[in-house]
Amino acid sequence: MGLFRVIPKLLHNRVVMACAAPRHQQVLRNAGLRFTVVPSKFEENLSKASSPTHFLHAMETAKQNVVEVVRSMHQKCVPFEAELGFLQKHGKAMEDADGNPHGAEPPPTAIVELIDGFKVSKALFTACKMKVFDVLRDEGPLSAADVARKIDASEGGTGQLLDVCAALGLLDKTEGGYSNTPLATLYLLSDGEYSLHSFVMIHEEVIWPFFSYLEFAVREGTVQCQRTLGTAGEYQYQESLYQNREKKLQFMGAMHGHTKVAARQVSTAFDLSGFTSACDLGGSTGALAYELARQCPGLKVTVFDLPEVIEDAICFQPDGPQTGQVSFVPGDFFRDTLPEADLYILGKVLHNWPDDKVHQLLSRISRSCKPGGGLLVVEPVLDEDKCRPLPAVLKSLTMMVLFQGRERSLSEYRSLLQAHGFTDVRAVRTGTILDAVLATRA
Amino acid sequence: MGLFRVIPKLLHNRVVMACAAPRHQQVLRNAGLRFTVVPSKFEENLSKASSPTHFLHAMETAKQNVVEVVRSMHQKCVPFEAELGFLQKHGKAMEDADGNPHGAEPPPTAIVELIDGFKVSKALFTACKMKVFDVLRDEGPLSAADVARKIDASEGGTGQLLDVCAALGLLDKTEGGYSNTPLATLYLLSDGEYSLHSFVMIHEEVIWPFFSYLEFAVREGTVQCQRTLGTAGEYQYQESLYQNREKKLQFMGAMHGHTKVAARQVSTAFDLSGFTSACDLGGSTGALAYELARQCPGLKVTVFDLPEVIEDAICFQPDGPQTGQVSFVPGDFFRDTLPEADLYILGKVLHNWPDDKVHQLLSRISRSCKPGGGLLVVEPVLDEDKCRPLPAVLKSLTMMVLFQGRERSLSEYRSLLQAHGFTDVRAVRTGTILDAVLATRA
Repeated sequence: MGLFRVIPKLLHNRVVMACAAPRHQQVLRNAGLRFTVVPSKFEENLSKASSPTHFLHAMETAKQNVVEVVRSMHQKCVPFEAELGFLQKHGKAMEDADGNPHGAEPPPTAIVELIDGFKVSKALFTACKMKVFDVLRDEGPLSAADVARKIDASEGGTGQLLDVCAALGLLDKTEGGYSNTPLATLYLLSDGEYSLHSFVMIHEEVIWPFFSYLEFAVREGTVQCQRTLGTAGEYQYQESLYQNREKKLQFMGAMHGHTKVAARQVSTAFDLSGFTSACDLGGSTGALAYELARQCPGLKVTVFDLPEVIEDAICFQPDGPQTGQVSFVPGDFFRDTLPEADLYILGKVLHNWPDDKVHQLLSRISRSCKPGGGLLVVEPVLDEDKCRPLPAVLKSLTMMVLFQGRERSLSEYRSLLQAHGFTDVRAVRTGTILDAVLATRA
Repeated sequence: MGLFRVIPKLLHNRVVMACAAPRHQQVLRNAGLRFTVVPSKFEENLSKASSPTHFLHAMETAKQNVVEVVRSMHQKCVPFEAELGFLQKHGKAMEDADGNPHGAEPPPTAIVELIDGFKVSKALFTACKMKVFDVLRDEGPLSAADVARKIDASEGGTGQLLDVCAALGLLDKTEGGYSNTPLATLYLLSDGEYSLHSFVMIHEEVIWPFFSYLEFAVREGTVQCQRTLGTAGEYQYQESLYQNREKKLQFMGAMHGHTKVAARQVSTAFDLSGFTSACDLGGSTGALAYELARQCPGLKVTVFDLPEVIEDAICFQPDGPQTGQVSFVPGDFFRDTLPEADLYILGKVLHNWPDDKVHQLLSRISRSCKPGGGLLVVEPVLDEDKCRPLPAVLKSLTMMVLFQGRERSLSEYRSLLQAHGFTDVRAVRTGTILDAVLATRA
C-alpha cells in the first residue's frame, strides 16, 4: 500500500522496475506509471542474522537489489539509453500501452506465457542433457562458440540455447561469457549434492513423451504406455522401471534428488522426537531416512523397498554419522511382512496409486502399527478445491499420466487414514516441493 | 519500501497474501513473515476515470482485491481453518520453512517451475483441442462429469485437466461447476474476435513436435524437418505450410489471432499520420492492416502476400468502415514488383529469415521506397544482451527451430536497415507480444 504514496513523486522521473513479475508491472501500469523493467538478479539471500531488525534486513536487501540493477544496466553492450523504453512513446500510445486489445481486459501475454511453458522446459532439459552446466562449472565463463565446441554442437544453436538459459536465471551472461548462476550450480550439475539433473532427465526422456499423448490420456482415462513406449498394460511404465540398470539408477537418482532438496523441511515439519524407530516404506535410496536420522539423533530408520532398489541404494549413501542410524531391508510392501517401527513413512508412494490400492497398503500398515504409533505421508498436498497450489495440481496430472495415480487434499488423506484406524490427521505445508501429513494409530 | 514499515504489525497476525508471485512471497518470507497464499482473481481493471487520483484508484483496486480474496476463501468447500497453513507449524520448522535445503540458497521450487512448464502448455493445448472452453461458453457452469460427456472423454482425466485449467486462471471452479474466466473467454474460444485458438493449435500440432527434437536442432544447427515431419529440406516446413487448405487456414488463423491481439498497440506505437499509403508485405489476413486503417482514417493499406494466402484472406475480413481502406495484392516479395507506398510494413517477416535473406528483402524494399518514406518492422525486439525479455528470447528460439530464423535487437535492426539507406531507426516496446521499429528512407 505504501507504494502508492510515492507514485506521485515517481510520475515525472525515469523509473526502472527491478522485478519482472507481470502482476507487479500491472499494478504500476494501472497506477499510470511509465517504467522500464530491468529485473534484479540479486538473490535476496542476505542472512537474517546480519541485520538487527526485520526492517533493516529488508532495507539492506532493497539496497543490494538497486546495486545489482545499476551494475547490470552498466554492463550492457550498449548504453541503456539506446534500448527500447516506454519513455520514447508518444502520448497517445502511452495511455493505453497496457498490453491488451482493450484497456480493461486481460492481456494476451498471460496466454502466451502459458503457451511458451514447453519451450522453457525443453530448453532446460536440452541444456542438462548436453551437460552445459557441467562444462561451465569446470571451465566458465565461456563464449557460445567455446561451449558449442565443448558440447559438440552448432554455434548458432548453442548461442540461442544459452541465451534462453540466461533469460531463465540459470546462466549469467557478461562480456566475459556465460557462467552458472547459484541456482544452476546448486541443482543442475550432474553430480551436485542437491542435483536435480536425473530428475530433469526423467522429464526429458519419459515424462515429455507421455505428455505428448495427454489428449489420449484424458480421453481414454488410461496410461498411454502403448502409444508412448510401444508396450501395453496399465502399470507397464512402473513395471519397466527397474528392468534396465541404467534406467533404474536414473529413476532412483531422480527420486533421490527430488526428495533430498525437500528432506530437511519435511523432516522438521513435525516434532518427531517421541519416536525411536521409523520405517520408510518405498524409501528407495534413503534420501529422507538419512535426513530424518540427522534431525533426530535418537531415531533408527529402516528403509524398506524392492530388492532391486535396495541392491543399488548404496550408490547414494552420504557421508556423516547419521548413516549408522539407517538400515535397508528388501521387500514388497503389498506382500511381505513390514518391519516393526513406531513411525511408518510413505513418501511419494500414495500418489502412484488409485484409492483401492491405497486402502490395501494402509490396511497392511495399520495392522503392523502399534497404538500410539505414527504414519507420516510425504506428498505435495492439494488444497480442498483441488486446483491449488499449481505445482501440486501439475504433480497430480503427472501421476495420472504416468501411473493412473493422483495427489490428494488433506480431507482426502484424513478420510483414507481414518478408515484404517488413524486419528489426529494433521498437515504442514512446508513451502518446498513436498508437504507432510502426520497421523496417529488409535 | 513502505511495506516493511507495516511488517512488525503483521508479525503476530494471520496474514493472507493475495498474490502468487514467487518473488513477492520471497520478499515476505525473507522479512520473517508467516502467511498463506490465496491469489486474488480480481482483474485490477477498474477504470482510471472512476477515481479522481492515482492514489484513490490504487486504494480502490486494493480494496477490490481484498473483497475478492475473502469471497474466494468463503467459497471453498471446506472452511479455511481446515486447510493447511504455516500457522499450524511448530516453532522450529517455521524458522527455516523457506523452501530450500539451506536458508541462504535459492529454492528448488524455482527449478521445478521451469521443469513443469511443458505440463502447463500441454494442458492448455489439450483443453483447446478438446474444445473445453467452447463447451463451457455454451453451457457452463458444468461439472467435470458433464464436461467429460460433452467432450467424449473419461471423467477422471477430464476432472484433472479442468483442475489444471482452474489452477492456471483459465477456469473458475465453484460448487456449481467450472466456467470460463474472462481470460479464456477473450482468447481461447475457437471463434472469438481475439481468439488465439488456432495459435494454440499450431503449438500443439507443429511446434511441440519440432521442440521434441530441440537437442538435434542445437547440435546440428538445422531445422529438424526430417525427424519431425519425415521430410527433408531446410525450409520444408515453410514450403509445406500452404499445400493443404485446412493447414493453411489454421496457420493463417494462428497468425491472424497473434497479430490481432497486439495490433492496436503496434498501430499506435508511432505517429503514422504523415503517411497516406502503406503496404504490408507478408500481411496475410490483413489483421494489422485493418487496425492501421482504423487508427489512421486517411491511410490506404495494401496487403501484399502470396496468391495462395490472398485467396483466403477474405475469410478473416472484419466488419467496419476500415475495410474500404484495405486492398489485397498477390505476389512474392522476393521476386515480384512491390506495390507503391509511403510506408512499408514487415510484420513477423524478418524473424523467419537469416541475415542474407533479410538483406535481399530490405534491398528490394529500399529500391521501392521514396526518400522520406517509412519502414515499420513489427517483431518482439530483444534487449541488446539477447537474453531479455524472456518472451522475445523464446520466440527467437522458436524461429530457429521452425525456420532457422531468429529475433533481433534494436542495434541489429539498425545495422540491417542502415545498410539499405534507412535512417532514424527508433523502437517502441509496446508492452504486448509485438514491438515496433520505425525507420525513414534517407
